[in-house]
Amino acid sequence: LSMRTLNTTPCRATPAARLSRRHRSASSGGDVDQVGALLQLCVDRHYVSPGQTNTELFQCGTSCIYGPLGTELRRNLLEQWWHSVTRSTAQVFGINTLSSSEDTATGGRGRLRMVESDCLRRVLEQTELSREQLVQKVQALIQRSPSPRTNFLQGALEQFVPSLELVNRKLPFGLAESGLCFQPSGGSGCPAEVTQTSLVWFCSPRTSSQWLDHWARQRLKWWRKFALSPSDFSSSDVPVEELEGAASRGVKIIYSFPWGQEPLETLWSRGHAELLQTHKGVRSKLQCRSDGRKSVPHVVSVTGNMDRGVMAFLSNSLQQLKKEDGKQKLLRRKVLKLHPVLAPVKVALDIGRGATMELRQVCDGLLQEFMEAKISAWPGYLETLPTSMEELNAKYDEMGVLFTVVVGENTLESGLLQVRSRDTTVRETKHISEIKNFLSRYISAADNI
Amino acid sequence: LSMRTLNTTPCRATPAARLSRRHRSASSGGDVDQVGALLQLCVDRHYVSPGQTNTELFQCGTSCIYGPLGTELRRNLLEQWWHSVTRSTAQVFGINTLSSSEDTATGGRGRLRMVESDCLRRVLEQTELSREQLVQKVQALIQRSPSPRTNFLQGALEQFVPSLELVNRKLPFGLAESGLCFQPSGGSGCPAEVTQTSLVWFCSPRTSSQWLDHWARQRLKWWRKFALSPSDFSSSDVPVEELEGAASRGVKIIYSFPWGQEPLETLWSRGHAELLQTHKGVRSKLQCRSDGRKSVPHVVSVTGNMDRGVMAFLSNSLQQLKKEDGKQKLLRRKVLKLHPVLAPVKVALDIGRGATMELRQVCDGLLQEFMEAKISAWPGYLETLPTSMEELNAKYDEMGVLFTVVVGENTLESGLLQVRSRDTTVRETKHISEIKNFLSRYISAADNI
Repeated sequence: LSMRTLNTTPCRATPAARLSRRHRSASSGGDVDQVGALLQLCVDRHYVSPGQTNTELFQCGTSCIYGPLGTELRRNLLEQWWHSVTRSTAQVFGINTLSSSEDTATGGRGRLRMVESDCLRRVLEQTELSREQLVQKVQALIQRSPSPRTNFLQGALEQFVPSLELVNRKLPFGLAESGLCFQPSGGSGCPAEVTQTSLVWFCSPRTSSQWLDHWARQRLKWWRKFALSPSDFSSSDVPVEELEGAASRGVKIIYSFPWGQEPLETLWSRGHAELLQTHKGVRSKLQCRSDGRKSVPHVVSVTGNMDRGVMAFLSNSLQQLKKEDGKQKLLRRKVLKLHPVLAPVKVALDIGRGATMELRQVCDGLLQEFMEAKISAWPGYLETLPTSMEELNAKYDEMGVLFTVVVGENTLESGLLQVRSRDTTVRETKHISEIKNFLSRYISAADNI
Repeated sequence: LSMRTLNTTPCRATPAARLSRRHRSASSGGDVDQVGALLQLCVDRHYVSPGQTNTELFQCGTSCIYGPLGTELRRNLLEQWWHSVTRSTAQVFGINTLSSSEDTATGGRGRLRMVESDCLRRVLEQTELSREQLVQKVQALIQRSPSPRTNFLQGALEQFVPSLELVNRKLPFGLAESGLCFQPSGGSGCPAEVTQTSLVWFCSPRTSSQWLDHWARQRLKWWRKFALSPSDFSSSDVPVEELEGAASRGVKIIYSFPWGQEPLETLWSRGHAELLQTHKGVRSKLQCRSDGRKSVPHVVSVTGNMDRGVMAFLSNSLQQLKKEDGKQKLLRRKVLKLHPVLAPVKVALDIGRGATMELRQVCDGLLQEFMEAKISAWPGYLETLPTSMEELNAKYDEMGVLFTVVVGENTLESGLLQVRSRDTTVRETKHISEIKNFLSRYISAADNI
């Protein structure tokens, strides 16, 4: 019974789901509060669309309905991944395969099938069929229906041969892909969708273990680059008894969530069995050169879950600070200190006192300038509800907005405006002509550290 | 019989498919040659993965297996679309919804269902069921299985309410999304996958027709911005008798392929019926402000097919030039004159005579510099097969590479290198220190025209 219960929740017994249930049943504790506060902030600040089912999907590390800020954060994360992998000095080529395939050879238990309900209906309406014939016909229809992919490995193994020409059969090289993959829900509802990233690396047999270590180091370095607390990201070898399939070694990149550790990325040294199987054992088609020798390459796979990655960076970057203001009032300040490259909104544009038509025009001009420089800007000055500057700053801190630019009456005369930093809370006066370059330099400096 | 035959091809009777078959059956004609040459080039130059089924998918304007260059071209196109829509001065928010939903209310004929084969097998194995009970159970299982989306409209209509807070219930605003959508194949095999873009625009009832015109103009301008022959892109009003569902007006953005016109993007002025239906007719939840009045907004939808967009730009940018060389030999030069912003490879790096270790190190350094500046570079100098400079240029022209940089012996002494332009075929000498900025400026100048 307990298995059945777990199967009907979207999470299927991940620590997050268990915690979420504990949280809902009003148990207390610092970590639980932390998770609750994070989820509330994600919904309030348009990272994740509201609704309990949706926030549960989010917590489980599967794809969910993201709001505008979550959508942009995931885009930024995926773009950084793509650049780090395809624009490294290593030879990695991006590819795009189909999300469902008719290959039935790999069809195992519990696989999803894309069935056309019309076709099935036509079979069921054939009244001349006996019960037994009907069962056989339905089984045959399911058997030849395509399966949505669960990962990108098979697609990359199939594209290995057409890619050989690009590298003159010289090892090592890799194929990269990112997008949605699907996991069966176990009959409880919608299949889980996961935004996966995949690097499938082909190398000579004797170097595969070194390459596994190389990529594990690179990947951990990449995750930590964007972290506020890098030590929450770690890597660990998969114990021999947990190795999957033909894999001889495995490494996981792990994030320590408040409720426990969860894998963000998994690396396997897989040997060449799957590559041979995909190409029906024709070794001559697969042989490559490396250091003067010829061999069928070994495969190292690097598979990431970028939905859980989004959750990890949101969790990692939320700071809850207590500070006293001038009047000795205790303020609780929540700041989402997302890395400048990941932050979905780089700058918010607001108007101080004296909201005249001219000030709006100055803001319109600045917004245009930011857009052209591909600096994502939040047009706060378009909001019609009056808000104090303090409330505004609190809101932008929770959104993770890097800088707030306030255009005021004296901007029209002197060209000066106020720039407030999320991370230091310091307000500086800058000239309107230097603000765009200041922001561009700030973001690219953070990118190149 | 003819319908059946058509149904077994992936294309289902699009002009491209018919043309492709004519082409295969060795019929001749200028247009057919043009299509054949384009497809061959796309496969040879790693835009599209080889194989007849795959090139047919490509021709049909559905997603296919793209090679590294096609993958990058589509990425660039999607990124341009995203920026043009979400970073315009109009209030457009990017969102991400789920790719399959359990909503059965909208389930029509021929809908795809994601079925878990295990669940179906368990039903079929229930020997105690009568034939009739079995049919009912299978039908019920299919009925409650989730459907993969065919477009992004429904998701945007559902996210309308949570988005209202972002805009203080003030019109107009829009929700943007891009990604894979699925179309049933009609029982012939895999469902067609299409990379769609969607802008769902909410505006006051009396302005919806103006907004339809506004977005139609904007979208046509966008397509033409990247075109070599802008006149191949056009827009036309949908005749009244072809209007879909509740739409009161429609506009299509069309590309004139060698085999005829095909729609790239479709805009509908849809009224508010679907929005009301999605939110069960609760008008109070949907009412917005606009110019002092309150109303349930009207919807304008803008839906693009970016796989067909990739095909259109490849077709549009292929130039076949005949020119005579100095020895009066007739040369046939094929150049893929993709827009600088779309071109998947901006610069190729090669070594002239004297392939020493030092020259390779110079190339390594330049490659690194290009990568950091996010200029996609092709490390031609890593190739081990000797090729003449002429063959190399012909290959890069077919790949659509903007510039070829050749590092030679005197680069080590003088810092000078040769830069050849794809579009002018002119070779210039530049100093190694200025090449990166030259390329960046060239690309961003083309972007801002």
